[in-house]
Amino acid sequence: MLGGMTDTRAPRIAIFDSGIGGLTVAAAIHASLPGASLRYLGDTARLPYGSKSAETVTRYALQASRALLADDGADALVVACNTASSCALPALEAEFDLPVLGVIAPGARRAVASAARGSLVGVIGTERTIASGAYGHAIAAIAPGLEVSACATPLLVALAEEGFFAGPLVDAALDAYLDPWLGGAAARKLGALVLGCTHFPVLAPAIAAWLARRGMPNVALVDSALAIAEELAMRFPTAGKGQGAVELLATDGLERFRRVGSRFFPLDNARLQLVDL
Amino acid sequence: MLGGMTDTRAPRIAIFDSGIGGLTVAAAIHASLPGASLRYLGDTARLPYGSKSAETVTRYALQASRALLADDGADALVVACNTASSCALPALEAEFDLPVLGVIAPGARRAVASAARGSLVGVIGTERTIASGAYGHAIAAIAPGLEVSACATPLLVALAEEGFFAGPLVDAALDAYLDPWLGGAAARKLGALVLGCTHFPVLAPAIAAWLARRGMPNVALVDSALAIAEELAMRFPTAGKGQGAVELLATDGLERFRRVGSRFFPLDNARLQLVDL
Repeated sequence: MLGGMTDTRAPRIAIFDSGIGGLTVAAAIHASLPGASLRYLGDTARLPYGSKSAETVTRYALQASRALLADDGADALVVACNTASSCALPALEAEFDLPVLGVIAPGARRAVASAARGSLVGVIGTERTIASGAYGHAIAAIAPGLEVSACATPLLVALAEEGFFAGPLVDAALDAYLDPWLGGAAARKLGALVLGCTHFPVLAPAIAAWLARRGMPNVALVDSALAIAEELAMRFPTAGKGQGAVELLATDGLERFRRVGSRFFPLDNARLQLVDL
Repeated sequence: MLGGMTDTRAPRIAIFDSGIGGLTVAAAIHASLPGASLRYLGDTARLPYGSKSAETVTRYALQASRALLADDGADALVVACNTASSCALPALEAEFDLPVLGVIAPGARRAVASAARGSLVGVIGTERTIASGAYGHAIAAIAPGLEVSACATPLLVALAEEGFFAGPLVDAALDAYLDPWLGGAAARKLGALVLGCTHFPVLAPAIAAWLARRGMPNVALVDSALAIAEELAMRFPTAGKGQGAVELLATDGLERFRRVGSRFFPLDNARLQLVDL
């Protein structure tokens, strides 16, 4: 068990995501805790989760976590997927006797820290994440007075999955989603924008450039991946050195996983394996 | 069994797709054979199929077809999904004792009929459909001399699923995919473009306008949905009248299925039901 104890053994961190996007979280954890051994599962056969019901996402999250933890467990389970974090944490915590960390709470804390008093926090994410209101609830619990506005941007997931990180197509998608949402008064108050999906950090430069073109150059982009890596670094202070093993599991398309995933995380030395859930 | 026989009973047609897109095929069949009763299954929990391996798509197609045919069978099984048609037909034909119709062969026949001698047939579809070379093989079997060129356009699936049928975002996606592919000499020879994914008919007006802007106003857009409806009308000549029942099954997200699906097919009188595969 973990609690506040300091363990000298290198921690083993299990990371679960609906697909490849969670590798942005794995990369942040690996950079922050290079000594930790990481075991990552991407449920590529059943992605995207973002348009699926909470019941289905919870069922998939339980199956994926069982597969991840089956062999020899882990010291912490990271739910890298915002969609699963928004609805499946209680079920995971009930089933597994280890710390389960979602990306919503760390992202919310970072958003509150980034946004000036009286400003607006924007949240973008999948349909399911936005419909859950999870970021709004998590932010309200820390900073009740802060105004939060959310917008589902599902196509940004597909763009990142297909390797479109910037350019006219990304800009057109941002126009389609953000202009109707941020047009008018809201834009002038926007202090922070939560990238509420693990795919979005790769789009951050394009999003920042878009906001600057719309006269919002000083909006803080909140990346949950960095927030959760910071939290893990505090929990496992001895894992800051060394070179932990990286093992990757996917439920489909290993070749594609390696090709697209290597844009998010250096996969050269990673062991890659297919699993069936 | 079917053969060339004429049956006076209204046929029951089972239709299977990875999600909502196959409703364009269901709509074409319903328009052509209003007397036939249709039972449709959209595997919305596991879409998209287009980026998954042939083994996984075949496994999913078998599971979905078993669910569709479990109660009282059907007179024909239509695989409305191009991806599944490109890789799963042999497995389906081996397991089920009824005519199994994919969308590739009818689409290929229509493409050959539409393209002038010496012209080029273009094919757009999912990664899996294009990687299979299925349209190229089917066209070569009918018209060996006809030149075929194919291009994977996976984001068009997500655009259609999210309800973007036209506008700047669709145009930007067409620029990103079609300009590099059709730039130069190929474009001048393009005689027909196969919409090799059941999602694409809803994008046909935008695609036609894009081609016209690029100086290709006379390219025939080949819609497999219409091709398979014609084929079924020949097989079931008595189903041209009456009002057959329509039953819809989905593996997730019924509310979303009804909302988005009604853009493809009039769902007011359809019975909608959730199934677990």
